[in-house]
Formats: sequence, C-alpha cells, structure tokens
Amino acid sequence: MKIEIINPTTTSAFARKSLAAAQGVASSGTEILSVSVESGPPSIESHYDEALSTIGILERIREGENAGVDGYVIACFGDPGYLAAREIARGPVIGIAEAAFHVASIVATRFSVVTTLARTKIICEHLLQVHGFEHQCRKVRACGLEVLELEETGMAACRDIVEECRRAVAEDDIGAIVLGCAGMADLASHIQEQIGVPVIEGVTAATKLIEGIVALRLGTSKFGDLAYPLPKRLSGSVKHLEIAPRD
Amino acid sequence: MKIEIINPTTTSAFARKSLAAAQGVASSGTEILSVSVESGPPSIESHYDEALSTIGILERIREGENAGVDGYVIACFGDPGYLAAREIARGPVIGIAEAAFHVASIVATRFSVVTTLARTKIICEHLLQVHGFEHQCRKVRACGLEVLELEETGMAACRDIVEECRRAVAEDDIGAIVLGCAGMADLASHIQEQIGVPVIEGVTAATKLIEGIVALRLGTSKFGDLAYPLPKRLSGSVKHLEIAPRD
Amino acid sequence: MKIEIINPTTTSAFARKSLAAAQGVASSGTEILSVSVESGPPSIESHYDEALSTIGILERIREGENAGVDGYVIACFGDPGYLAAREIARGPVIGIAEAAFHVASIVATRFSVVTTLARTKIICEHLLQVHGFEHQCRKVRACGLEVLELEETGMAACRDIVEECRRAVAEDDIGAIVLGCAGMADLASHIQEQIGVPVIEGVTAATKLIEGIVALRLGTSKFGDLAYPLPKRLSGSVKHLEIAPRD
Amino acid sequence: MKIEIINPTTTSAFARKSLAAAQGVASSGTEILSVSVESGPPSIESHYDEALSTIGILERIREGENAGVDGYVIACFGDPGYLAAREIARGPVIGIAEAAFHVASIVATRFSVVTTLARTKIICEHLLQVHGFEHQCRKVRACGLEVLELEETGMAACRDIVEECRRAVAEDDIGAIVLGCAGMADLASHIQEQIGVPVIEGVTAATKLIEGIVALRLGTSKFGDLAYPLPKRLSGSVKHLEIAPRD
Amino acid sequence: MKIEIINPTTTSAFARKSLAAAQGVASSGTEILSVSVESGPPSIESHYDEALSTIGILERIREGENAGVDGYVIACFGDPGYLAAREIARGPVIGIAEAAFHVASIVATRFSVVTTLARTKIICEHLLQVHGFEHQCRKVRACGLEVLELEETGMAACRDIVEECRRAVAEDDIGAIVLGCAGMADLASHIQEQIGVPVIEGVTAATKLIEGIVALRLGTSKFGDLAYPLPKRLSGSVKHLEIAPRD
Amino acid sequence: MKIEIINPTTTSAFARKSLAAAQGVASSGTEILSVSVESGPPSIESHYDEALSTIGILERIREGENAGVDGYVIACFGDPGYLAAREIARGPVIGIAEAAFHVASIVATRFSVVTTLARTKIICEHLLQVHGFEHQCRKVRACGLEVLELEETGMAACRDIVEECRRAVAEDDIGAIVLGCAGMADLASHIQEQIGVPVIEGVTAATKLIEGIVALRLGTSKFGDLAYPLPKRLSGSVKHLEIAPRD
Repeated sequence: MKIEIINPTTTSAFARKSLAAAQGVASSGTEILSVSVESGPPSIESHYDEALSTIGILERIREGENAGVDGYVIACFGDPGYLAAREIARGPVIGIAEAAFHVASIVATRFSVVTTLARTKIICEHLLQVHGFEHQCRKVRACGLEVLELEETGMAACRDIVEECRRAVAEDDIGAIVLGCAGMADLASHIQEQIGVPVIEGVTAATKLIEGIVALRLGTSKFGDLAYPLPKRLSGSVKHLEIAPRD
Repeated sequence: MKIEIINPTTTSAFARKSLAAAQGVASSGTEILSVSVESGPPSIESHYDEALSTIGILERIREGENAGVDGYVIACFGDPGYLAAREIARGPVIGIAEAAFHVASIVATRFSVVTTLARTKIICEHLLQVHGFEHQCRKVRACGLEVLELEETGMAACRDIVEECRRAVAEDDIGAIVLGCAGMADLASHIQEQIGVPVIEGVTAATKLIEGIVALRLGTSKFGDLAYPLPKRLSGSVKHLEIAPRD
Repeated sequence: MKIEIINPTTTSAFARKSLAAAQGVASSGTEILSVSVESGPPSIESHYDEALSTIGILERIREGENAGVDGYVIACFGDPGYLAAREIARGPVIGIAEAAFHVASIVATRFSVVTTLARTKIICEHLLQVHGFEHQCRKVRACGLEVLELEETGMAACRDIVEECRRAVAEDDIGAIVLGCAGMADLASHIQEQIGVPVIEGVTAATKLIEGIVALRLGTSKFGDLAYPLPKRLSGSVKHLEIAPRD
Repeated sequence: MKIEIINPTTTSAFARKSLAAAQGVASSGTEILSVSVESGPPSIESHYDEALSTIGILERIREGENAGVDGYVIACFGDPGYLAAREIARGPVIGIAEAAFHVASIVATRFSVVTTLARTKIICEHLLQVHGFEHQCRKVRACGLEVLELEETGMAACRDIVEECRRAVAEDDIGAIVLGCAGMADLASHIQEQIGVPVIEGVTAATKLIEGIVALRLGTSKFGDLAYPLPKRLSGSVKHLEIAPRD
Repeated sequence: MKIEIINPTTTSAFARKSLAAAQGVASSGTEILSVSVESGPPSIESHYDEALSTIGILERIREGENAGVDGYVIACFGDPGYLAAREIARGPVIGIAEAAFHVASIVATRFSVVTTLARTKIICEHLLQVHGFEHQCRKVRACGLEVLELEETGMAACRDIVEECRRAVAEDDIGAIVLGCAGMADLASHIQEQIGVPVIEGVTAATKLIEGIVALRLGTSKFGDLAYPLPKRLSGSVKHLEIAPRD
Repeated sequence: MKIEIINPTTTSAFARKSLAAAQGVASSGTEILSVSVESGPPSIESHYDEALSTIGILERIREGENAGVDGYVIACFGDPGYLAAREIARGPVIGIAEAAFHVASIVATRFSVVTTLARTKIICEHLLQVHGFEHQCRKVRACGLEVLELEETGMAACRDIVEECRRAVAEDDIGAIVLGCAGMADLASHIQEQIGVPVIEGVTAATKLIEGIVALRLGTSKFGDLAYPLPKRLSGSVKHLEIAPRD
C-alpha cells in the first residue's frame, strides 16, 4: 500500500518531519511517500494560505492518482482542500486535523487543541463544527508561535507549546491533547513525556486511519458529492488542473 | 461606491445576468462593476470547481483592491473562497448564499433553498451550518439541472425550477424560497409571480448588504482571522498571488 | 422610502439618539421618521418591560401602516415584539439586536456583545439562539449600567462601556463588538476609535438592512406564520388594537 | 395551595375545559382557581394574539399575587408571556407547552405534537428550541383546525385530531403524543383510548408540576433575570401595569 | 401511591438521607419506600460503578413491580440504568439528575451544577446533552469530594460545597444551583440559606415529578423503545434477571 | 498485537461471524481473539439487554487485561458499556457503532444507518448525538428484523436488508450505508455489490481503528473520567467484578 503524505507548504523541513512521523507508525507493508506542494506558500496561517495551498495539493493528488497512490494525508492542521481532494481521489484523503479529532475522541471523552497563531483557531473551530467534534473539544488554544518558528524546532518554541499544554491539562478537564500543527509532528512524544496525558499528533493518526480504510477495501465514496467532478474546460492559472472526460 | 460582482466562472452569460440583477437594485450612487474570473471553470458544481474558482476570485479581488473597489459579491451559491477573499479585502465580501440566507431569515421565519444538481446540496448545507441558518432553512432541494443549462435559461429549465419551488411551498411550511444558483438571477421575479411567496435571489441580496455595510463605514474586520494574511513568498502556479510586505 | 425608528420606551432622549444615528447613514432617498411609544416603560431591562413595550410598538406600527411607512426599526436591543410586529406590517420590521448580529457576522467571523445590566443578557442569548448566531457570538458581556444612565451619556458611563469592550477584545478572540443597547447609539464611533476593532451599532445596521430589503421589493412574507393575523374581537386594555376584517 | 389556571383568551369555554381538567388531577389540598383574561383575543393563533394576551395574563398575575396565589398555569400552548409573568410572581408560572414537554420527555424518549393551525407551529418550534426539547420532539403536526372550532368540541373536530394523531403514531417512531392546544383539554383521555399511546395534555401536566414545585418550597428564582422588574413609571395603555417601588 | 427510592449504592446512610428527603416533600397519600441495592458498589463515581449499580437497580425494580410500586426514583446523580429501568416498569422511573434539571429549568432560566469528583462531570454532561438541558446549564462544577465523604456529612465537606456554590453564584450568571449527588440530599436547605439562591435537590424533585405523573395516570410509555423487553433466556451472573414471557 | 472481539451475546453464531469479519481485514501481525459473554442475553434489542450484556463485557475485559489483550471490539451496534469498559482497560475499547460512524464520515460526507428492530433506533440516535455524528447521519432506518433472524442469515432476511438499503440510497442523499447490527457482519460485501455504494460494517471498522490506535502507542487515556475506577468493595451479583486496590 502506498500512502502519500502531502506537505501543503513549500518548506521541506515540514515534509521531512511528517515523513519521519508517518514512517514511525506505518505497517510493514506500507510504503510512505512524501511530497511537498510546488504551488503554495511556505507556511499556512490564514484562509488565504489555505486557498493557495489547495492548488498545490490538487496538483499532487492528480499525479498521485496516476502513480497508483492508495491514500493521501494532507499534512496541515487546517485540512486545506480536503473535500476537493476527495473528489479526485479513488482512495481516502484525510487531513491531519480531522484524523486527530477521530483518534482523540476514542482515546478520551474530552480533549483540547494546542495550535500556533491565534488567527488559525477559527479554521480549527470550523472543522470541529463540520465534523461534529465540538462537544468533545473543550478548547482550542494558541501558543502564539508562527508556523515557521517550528521549521527547526528549537528549545524555546517547544517550551511554549509544553507550557500551553500544561495549562490545558490544568484548566480544561481533558483526557488528551491534540497538537494543532504539522510542524509539531516531531514533538509529540517529547510533549507527552512532559505532561503525562496522551498527545495526539495528526500525521501519524491520519496514516493509520488511511491504512485501516484501505484494508477495509473502502476509499472515497464515488456516490454523491464526492463523485468525480464533471469534466470541464478550465482557464487561466488553473488550466493545468483540467480533468479529461472519462470514457 | 463601487461594488464588483465577481462571476467566479468563465461563462459570460452568468456575468451578464448578475450584472443586470445587481443594477436593477443598486442605489443611485452605486457603480456596479462586473467581472468574470480568468482562472476557473465554466460552471461550479463540486468542491473541486470551488477550489479552482477561488483562485480566479482572489486574482480579481487583488485587482479590485488596487482599483478602489468598495465591496465584492461572489456570484456563486457555494460562496467559494469567501473567507480567503475577505482577508485580502478592506471592504465587505459577500457570497450570494450567505446574503440570501440573511435576507430570507428577515423576510420569513422559515425558508427552503432550490438549487441545481443534488451533489451541490452539501456545499449549501455546510454554509447553513457555519453561518447558523440551519433552523431557518427547512430543506435544501435540487431540481436536477446542470448549471450550464441555465446559461440561456430556456422554458424547460425554468419550468423545472418552478415545479420544485411549488413542491417546497406545498410541503415545507415556509414563508420564502431562496434560489440556489447565480444562473437563476434573471428568474426570481418570474418565479415569484408563479408561486406567490417571496423569492430571494442572492446577487441582489448581496448587493444591498454590501451597500449597507459600506454606508455604515464598516468593511471586513482587520482584527482577528480576517486580518491581512502575513506576506509570504509563493511558488508555482499561485506565485502571481504573492502579497508584498506592507510598510 | 419612509423608515420609522420606533423607540419602544417613553424616554425621548433615546429617540433623539436613534434618529440621529439612522439619519447619519440613511440614503438620500430615505426619509427617517422617529417615534417613541406612548404605551410602555421609560427603559427596557426585563421580560416584563419587553411585554409592555410591545403594546406601544404594535400601536405605532398600526399607525405607520396607515401612513405608508415602508419599514420599521425596533430600537431596543431585546427586539421586543418583533414577530408580532412583522405580522401586521407589509414591509420589513427589524430589531436592532438581530440587525447587529447579521452585520457583525459579515464583518467578522466572531464577535462579542457588550450590554447594560446583567439581567438583560438572557434576552440577548435567546435571540442569538433563535436567530442562529450562537457560534458567531463569543460572549455576551454586561457592563452593569442601568439603561437610563445612558439617557445623557456622561463620561463615566462611556468609560465603563469602553472598559468592557477592551476586555472583550483582550479575552474573546473576536473581530468585532456589538453594542447591546439603543442608548449607546451615539457612542459607537467614539468607542471604535478607542478600541480599534469594528463596533456594530444596531440602529444604523437595521436602517441599512431595511433600505436594502425594501429596494429588493421584499418585505415581510405574508405566507406562513407572518401572514396578517386573523381578525378577532379584542377586549379590555388591548381593545384598541383590534384588527378589522379585510375585504 | 392555590393554583390559578389563566385562560389567556376571552372565550369562557376554554376556561371551563381547563378548570375541569386541572380539577381532575389536583391533589386534595389544592384549590384550583380559574380566570380568563379581561384583556386579549378570543383565541390565540399568531404572534400578535400572543402579545395581546400577555397583557391580560400580566393583569391577572398582579391580582393573583395580591390574592395569595401560589402558582399559575398559562393555559395556551404558545406559553404567551411566560418569562414576563415569572418576573412578577413569587411562585412558579408554567405554560402548558413547556409543561407537556417536560412530562412527555419522562414518559417517552420521543414524542410528537399535534396542534391546530399550521401557522402556530413556529411558536411551538421556538419553545422546543429555547427549552431544549428539539431532540425529543420528532414532529410538530397541525390538523388544520382553527382554535375556536374547539370551543365546543364537536365530533368532526375530534375526528380530525385523532386522525392526525394516528398519522403521528404510524410515521414518527414515537412513544407519546402532546396535544398542542388548551382547547383539546377535554379530549386527551378520549384520544388516548382511540390511539393507544400515552397522550399528554398540558393543563393537567402544568398543574402537577406546579404542585410539585410549591411542595418543594421552590418558586420562581428571584436571582438573575427573573427577579422582580425594576419599578418604573409606565405610560399609555399599559399604565395600569405599573409596579410600585418595594420598600 | 407507593414510590420507591432506590439507593443504587450499598451505603445505607445514603438511603436514609434520601428517604428523609423524599418523606419531607411527599403528599399525604404517598407512601415512600426506601431500598438500597444488594448488588453494586458503596458509592458511584465512574462509568464502571454505574454499570454495576444498574444491575442492583434492575433487581429492585423487578421486585417493586411485583409489589405494586407506582414509581421509582434512582437516587444517584448519574441516573444509572434509567432507560433499562423504564423498560421493565409500568410506572415512571426518574433519575435525580434528570429530575433536578427539569425543576431547575422551570425555577430559573439558567443554573449550574455542583457535584463531587471531577471525573463524574462527564456523566452529568452526557445527561444534559441527551435530555436537552445544555443551554440551561451554565457550568458543571466539581468540589473535589469523594462521595463517601458525604456518608455522614461533616462540617468540612459542607463548607467545600457551599464554597463552590458561592463561586457558581458569583461567576456563572445563574438563578439556581443543582446539587449533583444524592449524598447532599440533607444539605439542600442549609446551602440555600447560606447562598440565598434556590438550591434544587434531585431526590425531592424526582419524588414530586413521579407523584405528578402517576396522578396524571401516565407512566412509562409501553410503545416504542420503552416497551417491555422481549423475553429472552439469560446466562451467567445476570441469569436471575431473566424475564418470563408474558401471556 | 492481540485484539479481542467481544460478542456481547450468548449466541455463538454472532461470535463466528465477527471473528471471520475481523480476521478478513486484520494485519499480519495481529492476533484476533474471539469471545462471547458468559453473562448476558442471546441478542440485544433493548436498553435492558444492553445493561445485562455490559456485565458480561466487563467480565471479559477483566480477563483480557490479565491475558495481555491490546484492544477490544464490542461487537454490538449499541456499543453497550463502552465507557465502563474503557475505564478498566489500558488499550482502546471501541464499539462497532462508533467505529462505523468514524469510518463512514471519512468515506462520505453523509451516510444512513440500516438496523434491525425499530425499537433499537433510539440507542443509535443517542450514540450519534454523544459522538457528534448527527449531521453526518441522514437517517436511521430499521428493516424490522429481530436480531436472531440474523443468526444464520437466510435469503429472506438478506433481501429485507438490501431492500432497506436501496431505499436509503434512493431517498437519503447519501454516499455510504452503515450496517446497524453485528449479525450483518457477513453480509457487507454482498450488500455492497447489490447496491453499489460503500457499505460500512462495524466489526471490521473497529478492528482497523484499534490496530491503528495501538500502533500509535495510544490506548484509553488514564487521565480524567476514563482513569481506572477507584477500588471499592462490591456486593451481590456483581461482587466478582470487584477491583483490587492498585499498589
């Protein structure tokens, strides 16, 4: 089984972290592929960044479908473009926020999210709402770091995250923490050691969910709104994403 | 005041319809501009189409900001990219679905939506959920038409829509109908005549909401998640959407 | 177009403030009328006050309908009697709470309300729930002032409100503030200057929404629960509100 | 213990029915008083009717407080003015819709409501939402009768109601029916015999809830929003409802 | 009328407290029976404890049905096994949490719960969600006591509870407090005296609700999911709970 | 890794089906164990059956913990006792309803459930509510079969299920079907072939989720409400479930 971890940014350090995280949990029969988007921003911290990176993700998934990829992880906590991505994929496509929510809600009845900049909290809140995890998530917390401060995670950044996690444990009545950024993928076990409670990291969670869904011989339903998009003639800077009619 | 109606498709007929609709309700001091996206699909009927058209919309808004546009209507019922668009605009940006929901919920306590293909219903449902209009909307109904069948709206298409509206009135306990596609912008008054109950059309609704918000000297809040995106170096097919650092 | 601002209290200072606010944003073709209720309390701070002022509002709307008024603003943040009022009006009737919620949710993804006495918060919460803005509103905050302290807004009252607004900005992760009392109508721009983030004031918001709906040739749907009430013989102290049968 | 059943209409037949129903279930130590409003309409089928009858209810409760009444039933399924009424009462005040919802949700996990005219359904829906019974109520059904057709309930009216109840049982997956009009108070046991499933009638339900709350030495909390209204000078047609300052 | 208070623990002090509380509010014609479970734990502070005590409760209800009991109170704030219990009872079965929520929501528009250990809060939250009282309950608060510290309520325990109630009153904008443990049944009036606001205690609340429902000639609906369970051959440690086929 | 499939009934055919289903999807390193409860009913179709089978499940999990089981599947669609079970397990415990909901919501945006008797629908609805999948699930449908009719699934039973699935596909606007009974575990692929759309079966879904969570080195959080229950002296028919104090 081939699972592709799509780093929706152009910062290769994030791809390296995600790859290592996924490989650390993958089953023996699973091949983990790692790509970064060619089109997109170096980090994602706004709705605008999300819209741009979606193009890069869709480009990668079209290539992946030709290369026989069985499932895709969108390695950004905003799950950019996940519905559009599902439409053009046979197999499962899962964003790391949604993946982490699913796993956290099995591990504990209540969890909190610790993310980066405050302005990204709304994206997380919208995902919690649409996926139905509002009751399970006690609080979305920002530790105030810019995503690129996590490129090579220094001591200071890590300390800030651990500090916010501690506050969550002390104040939120929770059984688990969800890390809200792919740039934290290398920190999960360290943080868990520091704070004690289970720490859910989305890249690894998504990898295992995809392995499971593929083993169940399921993928993305091609009935209803996730069916392949109707082929259409595209224009302008997205023309290369045109889908040929199927025969 | 300059309001730009952005047709997020490459089909000029839709731009013409939206322009006419907006002009029909604009105040005397309002200049209605109409543009179609250069980048995007000819019609929007999927999450994928939405992601693509978002790029075209962002291109247009960047131009519009330089040209002193005061507010933007996104003339597609899925409100593609409306949050990203708001981040890069000073003034208000409003999608026609959200606009129609606001107006319909003032005109009546309960409404139904009549849209095109069944696969687009989920987009409408997500918007109703995120904007909080789930209680006010009794039902999202599809009449089974492809959007391009509305390019030059013939009698048959119109009959199908009216038929679905009649069913909504008969079965849904509603006080108003929301038309779920910009391609229906020229049909609102005809349908209202046929079925009696108020028919809300989003292009006109959005135009008036924008006029109102601009007159209130409000726009898009630049505090919180809709603040200008942090400037970043972009790559690939979205490079032209790079935002220069502000001084 | 004639829009009537109904001050649902007997305190003329509030009518003056609301009139000035509405005139400050009205379109050139709009005539703003201002009336205070004859029947009702001098200020509204309880469910009881609301029930009483509703009678005064209905009296005014019946007069207004005869005088050809095109739409009504109920200038109290509890939106007293807005559904009853809609039933007897052809045009739109909108309370300033609902109006402010609509506008605030376009300007920002999340807002907080700053109101007067704590006991009025429940009225605001019920409106947020029924109108579907619970997710968008982070917090309803009371600054502890009685409404009549806003009759002639002195420095102290204003300082308390600004203080509570500052706390909202600091603690609530919001993009906008909604002012929760018609008595604050003259303070909006001052407060916005002090705190920076957009401040939504309901009288002005409602005025523009009504202008918009009337321009859309919409009003209150006369289908369903907002249709004219069935004519009935009334008794006692409400006898004068009897509706003659329509022919 | 004195419980007053307030018929919020001027139609004495409804008062008679409610009185008989309440007396049929009251404890031996309970004195059931019955009054009709002096101010109000002969039947309640709109938001407007509700607003008018609220005045009549408040007049009666002020008298009742002087007469030592221990609790009040508002015998109209829209629970008109129940929050205002609570503010001016020491003891409990409960509307028959809310009462029926509480009882039905103990008797069964899911119920449906059968009411009169379709236009009244929205009032019931708002109550279900505000009181939190939306999940427990499967469906609000109207049988199309005007309330006054229930003044002296003939065979035809009863047949229509039974018919709608049967449909509810057949289609709604419910364990109980709630009757949605005080005018049906004399029909509950007859309908229950016809359809088998438990039928909840609000006047009787409210009577027992009030007996219970009074026995618990509870009433309406005078802390928070249901505290006595601040005394204020009233004007116009509601002047007689002025509350004297307390010493 | 015979009402049985089931103490779902093996600690007789709790049965004594509940019995006294119920007798203190019962009507003259009501006989209050008190039993403790034979099967179960000495206190209930976990999902596990709840599952165990459910067996003891079901044993008692089967005996009670043979003894002609008219209704049952489950005297533990987690309402263990209330749905299973309802299936095997003709009359009403009500847990003290649900009972307290119903009463509190009539007495005040908003309340808070003060319970024992933090780990029991989730049980309360699930009940609030399923019964629809999430909006009415502002906050579930734990005072950190183990349930058995309430066996013979000493001064220290009581002080901790009063302290937490005071915080609720000061911070939560509420009109009433719900006590979250049957072990607090003897403290309600003392606490109410200390803090002023109404204090709702579930054993007494449930007793009155059952009296009411029985007087209404209602019980547990035997239509739908609360109908008697289909008779089945049981095995192992629950074999004694086998239900004989009905003829 | 050892995963134990707990058949919470005494009917061995269900254990055989579940075992076969789980083995069909398990990874090579996973050992699937299968047990039936010793204590419990032959099938589960009521809240009462659920409460009884919970005892059998807890007995099995205590044995399993001693035997080094890494995770447990509760193979009944009502997920009986899943929270109590989680408290006494180190590893993950997952019911097949919850498992199916997680997987279905990744495979499609909307799904329907097809279950057995109508009276079990409420159990499914409560799980959807507590887990947050109410929006994703369009409809819970019963095909009217008793669970034991699925012991050896004959042609007739299968036909009824397929028929109900077809109706779901035709009427519910869904992308996937969830089978609502462990007794259908052998039918999933057959049904999927018949109806086309993806069919999610819970035993297989739960097996893969547990494999994933164990591989993530996560289990059940021992912080918060799922921590080990406090040790207590038990009595009566549940005495054998006493937990010794930990040192």
